Amino acid sequence: MPFSERASRLKGSLIREILAAAQRPEVMSFAGGLPAEAMLPVVDWTTMPVSMGQYGMSEGEPALREALAAEARALGVPCEASQVLVVSGSQQALDLAAKLYIDKGTQVMLEAPTYLAALQVFQFFGADCIVVPLEADGPDLDALRSQLQTHRPAFIYLIPTFQNPSGVCYSEAKREAVAALLDEFGVTLIEDEPYRELAFDGGTSRPIVSRLQRSSWIYTGTVSKTLLPGLRVGYLIASPDLFPHLLRLKQAADLHTNRVGQWQALQWLGTDRLKQHLEALRSYYRVRRDAFQAALQTHFFDLADWHVPEGGLFFWLTLKQPLDTRTLLDAALAVDVAFMPGEPFFPDPDAHKGHLRLNFSHVDPALLDEGLRRLADVVRSGQSL
Amino acid sequence: MPFSERASRLKGSLIREILAAAQRPEVMSFAGGLPAEAMLPVVDWTTMPVSMGQYGMSEGEPALREALAAEARALGVPCEASQVLVVSGSQQALDLAAKLYIDKGTQVMLEAPTYLAALQVFQFFGADCIVVPLEADGPDLDALRSQLQTHRPAFIYLIPTFQNPSGVCYSEAKREAVAALLDEFGVTLIEDEPYRELAFDGGTSRPIVSRLQRSSWIYTGTVSKTLLPGLRVGYLIASPDLFPHLLRLKQAADLHTNRVGQWQALQWLGTDRLKQHLEALRSYYRVRRDAFQAALQTHFFDLADWHVPEGGLFFWLTLKQPLDTRTLLDAALAVDVAFMPGEPFFPDPDAHKGHLRLNFSHVDPALLDEGLRRLADVVRSGQSL
Repeated sequence: MPFSERASRLKGSLIREILAAAQRPEVMSFAGGLPAEAMLPVVDWTTMPVSMGQYGMSEGEPALREALAAEARALGVPCEASQVLVVSGSQQALDLAAKLYIDKGTQVMLEAPTYLAALQVFQFFGADCIVVPLEADGPDLDALRSQLQTHRPAFIYLIPTFQNPSGVCYSEAKREAVAALLDEFGVTLIEDEPYRELAFDGGTSRPIVSRLQRSSWIYTGTVSKTLLPGLRVGYLIASPDLFPHLLRLKQAADLHTNRVGQWQALQWLGTDRLKQHLEALRSYYRVRRDAFQAALQTHFFDLADWHVPEGGLFFWLTLKQPLDTRTLLDAALAVDVAFMPGEPFFPDPDAHKGHLRLNFSHVDPALLDEGLRRLADVVRSGQSL
Repeated sequence: MPFSERASRLKGSLIREILAAAQRPEVMSFAGGLPAEAMLPVVDWTTMPVSMGQYGMSEGEPALREALAAEARALGVPCEASQVLVVSGSQQALDLAAKLYIDKGTQVMLEAPTYLAALQVFQFFGADCIVVPLEADGPDLDALRSQLQTHRPAFIYLIPTFQNPSGVCYSEAKREAVAALLDEFGVTLIEDEPYRELAFDGGTSRPIVSRLQRSSWIYTGTVSKTLLPGLRVGYLIASPDLFPHLLRLKQAADLHTNRVGQWQALQWLGTDRLKQHLEALRSYYRVRRDAFQAALQTHFFDLADWHVPEGGLFFWLTLKQPLDTRTLLDAALAVDVAFMPGEPFFPDPDAHKGHLRLNFSHVDPALLDEGLRRLADVVRSGQSL
């Protein structure tokens, strides 16, 4: 068929295939990044103006852009509302960035591991992925400098706060060092922060974009992890040199983001009830995280190593005896357990076997122990083959 | 800056720039394709389940896909719900198609004139646009055959029912002839139908995709012109060979379409109250269309030729003395009138001077006469320069 050259790189999303397989109600799923159903806030639509049904501006609702800019400034990001583009979930920010930057063979720099769906869209557009290994407190700085000395990436894509999938949160020192390196080499930063508000053990450090002196940047976030993913309301904030290009790409992609979701998001942003909701959410997830850690210690102490995540939605396990965890999926689903294999989070999956990403926010704690026991059995069986 | 090669073709959307310039309340705008504010239905959200706030499936809500498939079958389009992909407004269908088909230099076939934002996204991805002139009842069939004999387009993009911008509705005979030609040459059809329900003078003919025997196809529609554009809910229905590719592209673009808009659309689809709303909408627009025609006859009889559109939202004027209507924009805005120049609706704007697209659904009829009088004066002044 006469498809485009890039269509030959069009891969399915393993995570969405697993989620589809895990639709059966009896399946205990550690696979997705879904908020807990019980913590979805009940929202009120009765005061929404009829005019929200009309076409809107590609930039997004003016009041929402103002509110998002104010929140970002409170985090130290120097910006105005004119730099805020409301997008249809933060995945769209990655799609727009890929269109703006990536031709076949364009080098982009990524953490290893990194967010699966970012990898998917960057590779689809033809990116040559240069990676920097993650350590417990952020990227390996020597590796980062070395890669920057030998490559000229179009951008570097980082998730510094409770990274997906690793759970890593960059230290203050590494944030400073990364910003200085990017300024030194003049590399554009795309900083993705869906999990900043989900901090269980204290505060978080300022975004890296707030520390840049010279480099161009795109900062992206979403209401999906704090409010309602079903609204599909995310945003990006860009340095002024990039904004006009991203706006045009947004126009061509879907004209503008749905206004009913934008209106609903605006009802919450900056309010006391959102603060209270976030406090409740953190408490709820903290309890689940701790219960998950306890169950992991029972069932995986001899099988894997891991850090306890201080935020976000995931544990990242490293098996003591590496094996291709993709080969465990069918066996896990056969005993009604879903998980996310670690390999697809690397541009070169076959070189990084033996990780599992486990979501702790979604499974009912009453089923947790049984679910992890079954998963541990599946890993043991896989290792003895 | 190290942008992609395609970014060099990233143009702004003239229509959205005009809409921005026309934000001043005193401006009478004939520019956009906005539904009349007064006809936006009041919708009820009180029974929406909280679960609509959770992540959803990339394909769209199952019940909505079933309802859309049933509607399409009623139009003669042979399809199942499994072929329906809910998208974030039908503009997104064009973005997905462009990603799937278009590399730099890929030939695509279009009507001349054609929908501005389709042209924008196809050209952005690097399309080489092959055009077929439109006549009053559809494409020039000799030209279509001749183009098909000498080119191998990745697809042909058509808007057969109340075309934007020309208002043309293909005759039954031309629909049959186009389907036969596409089957003969094995060319994929993308059929875009946002205006089908806005028929003021009787019924409409079956979609062309329903007449294809062999060619692959994508049929796309939206609730934006019938219900609420602010929901950003559109859909595409694809032949089974294309669907899996489009689904993966949708996943990578924005995960899924917002669920609150999908839920609201489902409350209306196939119901009696939608039938009543559409009947009211048609009556309302018919009155506006007729008033517009009367005012045009008063002010433009010596300046332009046009057909009275039997549906859709636009009059398409051809000036008796062609001039570049883009040069009239500033003068029109200076007297608080906005319109859409015709040139950008052609891949080669400079070769098609002297058309205006005028929307008749949005301006208050009380202001219509004054607005068109001012616009006629602007055209006269432009011609005498």
